[in-house]
Amino acid sequence: MDERVRGHAAVLVGWSARVKEGDNVVLSVGPDAHELAVAVADELGKRGANLLSTYSAGEVTRAYLQAHDSEFDENPAHELALLAETDVYLSLGGGRNTSATADVPGSTRRAYDSARTAVREARLDTRWVSTVHPTRSLAQQANMAYEEYQEFAYRAICRDWESLADEMAQLKALLDAGSEVRLRSAGTDLTMSIEGRTAVNSAASVAYDSHNLPSGEVFTAPTATDGEVLFDVPMTIRGSPVRDVRLTFEAGEVVDYAAEHGGDVIEEILDTDAGARRLGELGIGMNRGIDRYTNNILFDEKMGETVHLALGRAYDACLPAGESGNDSAVHVDLITDMSTDSRIEIDGEVVQRNGRFSWESE
Amino acid sequence: MDERVRGHAAVLVGWSARVKEGDNVVLSVGPDAHELAVAVADELGKRGANLLSTYSAGEVTRAYLQAHDSEFDENPAHELALLAETDVYLSLGGGRNTSATADVPGSTRRAYDSARTAVREARLDTRWVSTVHPTRSLAQQANMAYEEYQEFAYRAICRDWESLADEMAQLKALLDAGSEVRLRSAGTDLTMSIEGRTAVNSAASVAYDSHNLPSGEVFTAPTATDGEVLFDVPMTIRGSPVRDVRLTFEAGEVVDYAAEHGGDVIEEILDTDAGARRLGELGIGMNRGIDRYTNNILFDEKMGETVHLALGRAYDACLPAGESGNDSAVHVDLITDMSTDSRIEIDGEVVQRNGRFSWESE
Repeated sequence: MDERVRGHAAVLVGWSARVKEGDNVVLSVGPDAHELAVAVADELGKRGANLLSTYSAGEVTRAYLQAHDSEFDENPAHELALLAETDVYLSLGGGRNTSATADVPGSTRRAYDSARTAVREARLDTRWVSTVHPTRSLAQQANMAYEEYQEFAYRAICRDWESLADEMAQLKALLDAGSEVRLRSAGTDLTMSIEGRTAVNSAASVAYDSHNLPSGEVFTAPTATDGEVLFDVPMTIRGSPVRDVRLTFEAGEVVDYAAEHGGDVIEEILDTDAGARRLGELGIGMNRGIDRYTNNILFDEKMGETVHLALGRAYDACLPAGESGNDSAVHVDLITDMSTDSRIEIDGEVVQRNGRFSWESE
Repeated sequence: MDERVRGHAAVLVGWSARVKEGDNVVLSVGPDAHELAVAVADELGKRGANLLSTYSAGEVTRAYLQAHDSEFDENPAHELALLAETDVYLSLGGGRNTSATADVPGSTRRAYDSARTAVREARLDTRWVSTVHPTRSLAQQANMAYEEYQEFAYRAICRDWESLADEMAQLKALLDAGSEVRLRSAGTDLTMSIEGRTAVNSAASVAYDSHNLPSGEVFTAPTATDGEVLFDVPMTIRGSPVRDVRLTFEAGEVVDYAAEHGGDVIEEILDTDAGARRLGELGIGMNRGIDRYTNNILFDEKMGETVHLALGRAYDACLPAGESGNDSAVHVDLITDMSTDSRIEIDGEVVQRNGRFSWESE
């Protein structure tokens, strides 16, 4: 077996999920993530955890949803019972076609999701971590050759996370102490309040309230956003390419928008509910193992020298205890490149200039 | 999709497992059984059942067992909770290598199995059905080309089960009314008592206490076996080829044995416990869709014009209520060809001669 696959499994089980003896583990395996599943099973066996593997295949889901009359039973008892007794939920994404469920009607998908709220919450109550096995389908989505994509993915995943966590702690400290963030770049001059909010040092471990591997970002929940922002990193949102989105904020709310491509998708998102016109997240990407856009939000939003803003729902971890942040049915990330002619300021102090943090030697 | 795969799924979900709206279904999927899983998901969606897929991969199990210290937790709570709320358990076998767990030490496997008694019992308490997707690895094990094997498997699986069940009911009636069975063939002259026992019409459906697809046999639990038997159908038992096993019975117990190949495996089985020297099952194969030996007990023991006898554990379904039959840690089937120079007699009446039943026109 490729030693990088073993390395990936060791990071996932050890650093990310902190699996220990006697943990009841659910391992969700995509059809092409088999090799990673074998390596993870080895790590779980070594640690004396209890393994149950589930199969997560887009084609199976599509067949089921297409055939169903869409009147789904609420929170099936067998799945709920499983998750209620699960300590760790590891999702190994990886199929043969990233568009495997493309023709499932949105209404069917929404009916299925909304019948499964308790199942989803039970999963989020475990020490869950999502990762992907670098497959040919993900390479294709990134417009990359397979071996090139493998190298890219493992650079992002198999890193010294402890050292990155230490570096990210510096930014978290500045954000926690600060009141206002200002982002400046070509087409962007945006201010937002972070008063009273707590930043998450998202270091790819449940020990840091971080549930993605790779991760490598520091994020918080801003309010009172004002100004203009240009999202110049290309994305695919709801199956449509979206390019050069411009948003204008006044008193926290989007008052104008434009886009080179995909304006209709942005409009649809903004019209979801009141919360969809406000920001739920400011995230600052710090994973320099991710040095290019690969059309996969799991990687893109953590890219070093980028920031992302999400329209919609805020994460509780950023809010004072008992306070609820921006609420919405959506959480849609949009990304801006900050590597050139750019600054991130906190209370007027420049903390990042042209992608370099103030503590880094130029 | 191959219409035969859809046909297989329809038989499994409809005839075999009798899935109905609201059933909580666990679908256990082998790595190469994906296509059948897609077809089964479609059938489950149509019926409004609730689907959770698990992943059953020999390579994942091997990695886990090899890495574990073999002190397994008893009956992990998450797996037990899942099965306690499961109505239907469908196992779709099919991997890339039928020897995927060949190097797992027997002691590790036994420790794992014995720590999971309650998990196994919970699964057997559901409407469970085991089948296989015809894979290249199973074709190889059968010494057959892939397409040839597919045709073979679907002939065995996609049949008119209702009509076969009707035919098998005739044999069941004769066995239920009878007291003694005598098997005669080259190298075989064996008598056994079936007094007070109930035969199972194993018609590949939970409605018939039958949990294999394909099935197609009538079986009961004999006692007081006397005489000689030659098992001339080649088999692989515990990874070893076994050929031309001869057993001599006196008063229900094996008193002598010999084998052209694999005598050591037979000896190991007979030495397991007292019950391993007695018969647990007499099965009469009636699935003429299975016309050749494929080194897979799921198919071989149901082959038309064969009988099989199992050393070891008897099935409760064959016994009077409250009575316990032959008990043993093993249940090992051995098969005899009855197509030529052979007779099956019940209380002196010939019910099958040279593979033809008394009710069949010659």
